[in-house]
Amino acid sequence: MTIPPSVGDLPYEQDLTGCLENIPEKTFDTALNNVATALDGLRREYRNGGLPHLDVPLNDDDLEELRDVAARLSDDSRHIMVFGTGGSSLGGQALQQIAQLVRSRKGQQRPQGPELHFLDNLESPWVDRRLMQMDPAATRFLVISKSGNTAETVTKTIMAIEFMKRAGLEDEITRRMVIVTEDAAGDNALRRLAADFGLRVVEHPKDIGGRYSVLTVVGMLPAILLGLDPKKIRAGAAEVVRQVLNGDAPQRIAPAAGAAMQCALIAHRHIAAMITMPYTSRLRLFAAWLQQLWAESLGKEGFGTLPVTAVGPVDQHSQLQLYMDGPNDKLFNLIHIARSPESFRIPEQYTAYNKDLAGLQVSDLTSAQQQGTTQALLNRGRFVRVFHLSNVSERPIGALFMHFMIETILVARMRRIDPFNQPAVEELKDWTRRFLPQR
Amino acid sequence: MTIPPSVGDLPYEQDLTGCLENIPEKTFDTALNNVATALDGLRREYRNGGLPHLDVPLNDDDLEELRDVAARLSDDSRHIMVFGTGGSSLGGQALQQIAQLVRSRKGQQRPQGPELHFLDNLESPWVDRRLMQMDPAATRFLVISKSGNTAETVTKTIMAIEFMKRAGLEDEITRRMVIVTEDAAGDNALRRLAADFGLRVVEHPKDIGGRYSVLTVVGMLPAILLGLDPKKIRAGAAEVVRQVLNGDAPQRIAPAAGAAMQCALIAHRHIAAMITMPYTSRLRLFAAWLQQLWAESLGKEGFGTLPVTAVGPVDQHSQLQLYMDGPNDKLFNLIHIARSPESFRIPEQYTAYNKDLAGLQVSDLTSAQQQGTTQALLNRGRFVRVFHLSNVSERPIGALFMHFMIETILVARMRRIDPFNQPAVEELKDWTRRFLPQR
Repeated sequence: MTIPPSVGDLPYEQDLTGCLENIPEKTFDTALNNVATALDGLRREYRNGGLPHLDVPLNDDDLEELRDVAARLSDDSRHIMVFGTGGSSLGGQALQQIAQLVRSRKGQQRPQGPELHFLDNLESPWVDRRLMQMDPAATRFLVISKSGNTAETVTKTIMAIEFMKRAGLEDEITRRMVIVTEDAAGDNALRRLAADFGLRVVEHPKDIGGRYSVLTVVGMLPAILLGLDPKKIRAGAAEVVRQVLNGDAPQRIAPAAGAAMQCALIAHRHIAAMITMPYTSRLRLFAAWLQQLWAESLGKEGFGTLPVTAVGPVDQHSQLQLYMDGPNDKLFNLIHIARSPESFRIPEQYTAYNKDLAGLQVSDLTSAQQQGTTQALLNRGRFVRVFHLSNVSERPIGALFMHFMIETILVARMRRIDPFNQPAVEELKDWTRRFLPQR
Repeated sequence: MTIPPSVGDLPYEQDLTGCLENIPEKTFDTALNNVATALDGLRREYRNGGLPHLDVPLNDDDLEELRDVAARLSDDSRHIMVFGTGGSSLGGQALQQIAQLVRSRKGQQRPQGPELHFLDNLESPWVDRRLMQMDPAATRFLVISKSGNTAETVTKTIMAIEFMKRAGLEDEITRRMVIVTEDAAGDNALRRLAADFGLRVVEHPKDIGGRYSVLTVVGMLPAILLGLDPKKIRAGAAEVVRQVLNGDAPQRIAPAAGAAMQCALIAHRHIAAMITMPYTSRLRLFAAWLQQLWAESLGKEGFGTLPVTAVGPVDQHSQLQLYMDGPNDKLFNLIHIARSPESFRIPEQYTAYNKDLAGLQVSDLTSAQQQGTTQALLNRGRFVRVFHLSNVSERPIGALFMHFMIETILVARMRRIDPFNQPAVEELKDWTRRFLPQR
């Protein structure tokens, strides 16, 4: 049983040919049978209300509130500092890069609204200094933490409150800061801060963990602030959900075919790493988002492949030597973008300097590079999956977010791993506490 | 034979304890014997003039020319666009992040001179648009390519020339653009462009490839432009070189002990990846520089571990689950920075929101996080090496650059791999050429 390069009608095309050529047909068929079982379980769980993740893109009822919050944060401000880490930040950062590309395609130079600054790491004096460089009157704060207790985020929130106090804006804190956190019966640090300082709170959906939250308020509020259309992002994701739920066989469902391929490779080809390599720098943080999703969901009980981000063509000059000629233990997710219709053309008069390039458009070169890399890897027997996007915009990106969430959940189900917990991270917090100064 | 946490007197401390605990003593001793042979060979090669890489930090004769070039590029300019890719760019980008931290420690907000923009990827309309946003009168160009034929770099150089022509600055091109490339008997695209447009050319050392070039003009010219002291960077590197050349046994030489540990882990513990995780975002691009060095030098003939960059504490919320509980097939290079003497203190009045944090300095928390992560990984039997830096400044960073270059060369010698070529990348260029439009 083989599958066509593209299954169904989605805003992207997934081509598994370069993996299937290197896996015995029987191995892949067995994996497809296993994923069919996982898929049935997932559909059953969804029908019983157990997978709210799949409902998120099917429902836009929350967007009115989010637009209101966005308007409030944008009003009279030039900078919005976004505090959050991991799943509370990576989706928004990915969308910020994508928004730059969407604007660039539309010929817009700069965002219409305020600029977003994602401060996801905790480094004083670094964060401190970034705050001090801001004009207090033109700065707003968006704080995101599902648990409401993430140490880094709570610390930065306190720094921002103190920053506003020092600037004589104590009375303004209420309208300058918005909190996104879960209900938790009012008992988390951010909720207590919100209550005491009169801050607006937007509810973080209760059963959707950070790394699965990009299509909720966590990513959609930044998306609105960045000038993206959240309905289109969700519409792209909804198409994937509908394909998954429609009862079709796994080889007709892109993320299910992807999950089968992953399991076949891991079990039978000892794949150690998954390299995601878009051919544009503007999807680097999308790949970083995927890194967290994959690592935290699947890196358990000795299982899990190492997710890595690379960017073409620049990493051809950095990592491709290893990818082509090192150990053959990697799956490559290449993300190809269709050749853009117009770009800088290298005038013919430069023939004396490079006869290959003169007369070409830059997009001819980058297009040849993504095809050349793909063929070079295939020629060396590497495991290559290609995603084709006609362009980088809301619909295909929303669809890719959902593709990878479902592929991850299905791999976890096939390996009997819980895709939604992160026990080692909880253990890590205990270790950190031991090294805090005792008072 | 075991080795002390720190060997000799270097501007950093290397602690291998967390690896040695997990390798049988005999295995490591065998690797030390092998690295002794590699070390002898390296010293012999150096004495015969075959390793100019080691001479670079011992000689500052070129700095006068570089300061002159830097002054010329800075004069009357606010932006310097740096064109280059891979080894022609990553070292400079790493130094830019480090310069931010050095300035931040000194309490300076902004660089004294013009801002550097490293455009290492080739994306039109992206590069195009970045150029158009620049004020032509305030922009200069620094073009770096050893071969002088790198397609991306040549293309961007042509774009910049056309950009200046369009802005009516054709007569000014001569003083606005500087080229760094090798001699090559005048026969490369950048040299031909330089000749025709009257551009100043700075010689790229002939026998030092891009990924080993950070201490040459390739990194030192950006360093000067960024306000760093190139003499101090080289002085740190020189200390490592002197330790290597002084004839001591490998366990007394940090990069040799490191190379022995690498080979022992790869051969006897099936290590598949090397994770470099500094506890500051400002060393992320240093780790990216190391990724290229390691991947291109060692990823050959089925050999090579996958180099990965992570950043603490932010990636605790993204990758640590996999690192702690996934397959135990990774070496961790943790880079600890000593607790900074002063940082934001969380006022006691916030005890109600988080009793662990109130009263602490932010640096108490980040310090506890780097120690907590280390212990959590060790507790799970992971392979951990720790580099301790008293701070992020020129000397220790110069030393770390050289440490990793020598460790890489020694691993290659032990495995009979050429650390200086990249045959697969040449093959890749042929593949790309096939997909260029025929004219």
